[in-house]
Amino acid sequence: MLRDFVKAARPDENELKKEVKLQQEQLAAYQMQMKEMKLPVMVIFEGWGAAGKGTILGKVIKELDPRFFHVASMAHPTKEEKRYPFLHRYMQEIPEAGKFTFYDRYWMEEITDSLMDGSLSPDQYKKRVVSIIRAERALVDNGYLIMKFFCDISRKEQKSRLKELEKDDNTSWRVTDADWFENSHYDEYQKIYDSYISDTSGTGAPWYIIDSNDSKWGLLQVLRFLNQGIGTALKNSSLAVPVRQNVFPLEPVEKLSSVSLDDKILDEKVYKKKLDKLQNRLSRLHNEIYRCKIPVVIVYEGWDAAGKGGNIKRITAALDPRGYEVEPIPAPEPHEKARFYLWRFWNRLPKDGHISIFDRSWYGRVMVERLEGFCSENDWQRAYNEINEFEKELDDWGAVIIKFWVQIDKDTQLARFTARQNTPEKQWKITEEDWRNREKWDLYEKAVDEMLEKTNTSFAPWHILESNDKKYARIKALEIVISRLEEACCKDR
Amino acid sequence: MLRDFVKAARPDENELKKEVKLQQEQLAAYQMQMKEMKLPVMVIFEGWGAAGKGTILGKVIKELDPRFFHVASMAHPTKEEKRYPFLHRYMQEIPEAGKFTFYDRYWMEEITDSLMDGSLSPDQYKKRVVSIIRAERALVDNGYLIMKFFCDISRKEQKSRLKELEKDDNTSWRVTDADWFENSHYDEYQKIYDSYISDTSGTGAPWYIIDSNDSKWGLLQVLRFLNQGIGTALKNSSLAVPVRQNVFPLEPVEKLSSVSLDDKILDEKVYKKKLDKLQNRLSRLHNEIYRCKIPVVIVYEGWDAAGKGGNIKRITAALDPRGYEVEPIPAPEPHEKARFYLWRFWNRLPKDGHISIFDRSWYGRVMVERLEGFCSENDWQRAYNEINEFEKELDDWGAVIIKFWVQIDKDTQLARFTARQNTPEKQWKITEEDWRNREKWDLYEKAVDEMLEKTNTSFAPWHILESNDKKYARIKALEIVISRLEEACCKDR
Repeated sequence: MLRDFVKAARPDENELKKEVKLQQEQLAAYQMQMKEMKLPVMVIFEGWGAAGKGTILGKVIKELDPRFFHVASMAHPTKEEKRYPFLHRYMQEIPEAGKFTFYDRYWMEEITDSLMDGSLSPDQYKKRVVSIIRAERALVDNGYLIMKFFCDISRKEQKSRLKELEKDDNTSWRVTDADWFENSHYDEYQKIYDSYISDTSGTGAPWYIIDSNDSKWGLLQVLRFLNQGIGTALKNSSLAVPVRQNVFPLEPVEKLSSVSLDDKILDEKVYKKKLDKLQNRLSRLHNEIYRCKIPVVIVYEGWDAAGKGGNIKRITAALDPRGYEVEPIPAPEPHEKARFYLWRFWNRLPKDGHISIFDRSWYGRVMVERLEGFCSENDWQRAYNEINEFEKELDDWGAVIIKFWVQIDKDTQLARFTARQNTPEKQWKITEEDWRNREKWDLYEKAVDEMLEKTNTSFAPWHILESNDKKYARIKALEIVISRLEEACCKDR
Repeated sequence: MLRDFVKAARPDENELKKEVKLQQEQLAAYQMQMKEMKLPVMVIFEGWGAAGKGTILGKVIKELDPRFFHVASMAHPTKEEKRYPFLHRYMQEIPEAGKFTFYDRYWMEEITDSLMDGSLSPDQYKKRVVSIIRAERALVDNGYLIMKFFCDISRKEQKSRLKELEKDDNTSWRVTDADWFENSHYDEYQKIYDSYISDTSGTGAPWYIIDSNDSKWGLLQVLRFLNQGIGTALKNSSLAVPVRQNVFPLEPVEKLSSVSLDDKILDEKVYKKKLDKLQNRLSRLHNEIYRCKIPVVIVYEGWDAAGKGGNIKRITAALDPRGYEVEPIPAPEPHEKARFYLWRFWNRLPKDGHISIFDRSWYGRVMVERLEGFCSENDWQRAYNEINEFEKELDDWGAVIIKFWVQIDKDTQLARFTARQNTPEKQWKITEEDWRNREKWDLYEKAVDEMLEKTNTSFAPWHILESNDKKYARIKALEIVISRLEEACCKDR
């Protein structure tokens, strides 16, 4: 790529100056249009040290309204950040609808540097590439415009710029050992950059290689591509996006209507005995999980009044409070709605060695958001695959993913609703919305069946908890959690 | 990918048999639906020698209607085929709307084998990957469903199958030295397969890795994915496809309205002299082109009666008739319309060392097809980028691409139309349609301006031939062709 990209012809000085101004104005106009259309834009600058990324970036934003853009600089990950999946700290930085984020480096440098110093194996590298391709595609499918610029300069040009910067006391601090190292290993870096660029180009977020040996000309190239790209994105913005082909094998799963409930009962005495034993075991396991740095994600979905809360309590009762978090998931807030719908879940992931228990989750996309029309049909149809890919990210990171569907029948729900209404201290638990949802039982059942069918992967399987008898469901949940954690600990040893 | 793909769990024998039957019936039903919806499907089988591709393929098609599918086997390219771009022989094999083609190997093997024997350099490999990603994406964007299966078996399993096959006289011919070579270099091949699969996965045409150590189970996995994929494709079929971001820098280009015509005249005597000289030079150059095996593609577009035909004649008059082809492009025939719109042009490419002159071309997509509504707005808007990528393929192959827009003004056209109508032997040249097109002059002008702007790449630049004076236009065309060919010959030396 770098060695044979198609170079444009530089206009003469006058022409260039004139066009830069026009393009800057066009960009400012587009900024307002993107704001109106509520489209988020990610503009990523990568390139050689001293290639002039900062200078170009400074001029690109010159005519823009600063209320609607943000500049992010991505340094190398801290020790703390390394306890999360690779994508985590980057996903946190995505812009909200209608705003631009300009990135002074994004996820390229972390990868190419660790390839260069050998801390990333070729196999790990391939995984990173897959992660990036999937993440970028999911963002683009969800309305993000992503434009990636690589500022390219020759070895000679880089050397002379570094020398120039070093001469001046005001700029010499900008030249680091890493810059000189890059210059003295130019060919090796070029090869790595080349691979990275070509490996991550086949998405809706293409690379633009910018000849930056002349910085004014570099600026114009960036502006031209930017405006062109935004023009295309505006044209595309009204289109629905094809559902991507699912590549993960899906395990067969029972339909809710055939789950038998009434024979799943536990005697109080047996329950107490089992509960005690299992909680003790889980408690010990929690330490092991922490020691082995295994992250755990537990998802609870289920009917209203199915007994999720009580079930979760029986799990957390066995856990060290410093090592877990329960995440109740309400309707998204405005700043969450303004971003990719998985963003708020990326922000709620556990650190390695920790457990996050989600009381409702990203599956809201294909249940309540689907049924209440909070997203388009196209959005929720795409979501199955987006969710499988998200969970595959967690799996690749080493997480144990346990998903529970807490199942009751309609009569049981009615009985519990009525009981709640008649018990003053439980009245807060029952709302008008619960009754409305109950009326849509059949629609929900259809959506849940489809969800179970399309997201039951071997790396993140669903488990149905028969919860007409809550005691039975609690014991079953504990047993599953314990068995999955034991399996993970063994693998890790 | 191969070493860590997500494996599904095999059902027991009974379950498996039952499900295979159900899935085969579903596939047969889907075949009819795809036929109705006029959607073309490419199902590609790749994998280890003796992995059972043939057996699986045989059972996949078992319930299908043979009138609507076709099986293609791709061998290694012949010497003749190597004189065309890499994609050429594959593009010829794409199915038409509503039909399935099942491929016993497609473009993977040619690449992985030449990587293995060292005849393909890593840089060339990267180019191939880019070509494939672009081609698959263009096909998918144009309504093709592409599903790629890799049948995976272990080294041990392969060895025992090869031995088994060799034992029987009826099957021993199927085992080649290449199979044994693959088995004895299993790890190296695995690495190459792995790279290829991950490098070509980030498209709308994903890879499915099939655990084929057990062939019945392999069949079921393929059937499951196939039906799932077709289901998704049917859901997507009504959606428009986003216009892809253009990554090639576009050179500025004059608007037609600002092209000055009346000062571009040549005196008859000067013309004759120049013509003679230039044709002699071109004649000599043609030999050189042939010797250096440089393919040449010349495109003529322009207004009716602009003088394309006469212009082309002045070029071909200088050429050896064994070394060029003039391709007049009429409206597409039904079998052409049933395929990707660039298919008929892939089929008309010159061999290396040869010249193809297109009298009208693929640019019909963004002119007549756009204005007459022969394709959707989404289709022609996507076409600029698809055409740039197509031409980049030709450029990467080493072709010289010369594109002429033959320009006249409206008055000149009227004068020529009238003259044609009044000259009996020229009356065939003027039709009702010409008059109708003339009425749409302004719409055409807008479309042409947009076309010139969006497809004026440095590797396939447009040249405007001012043709109010046909002599002027002819000399200019000859000069451009000569200078481009001289440049190419020099580069080649």
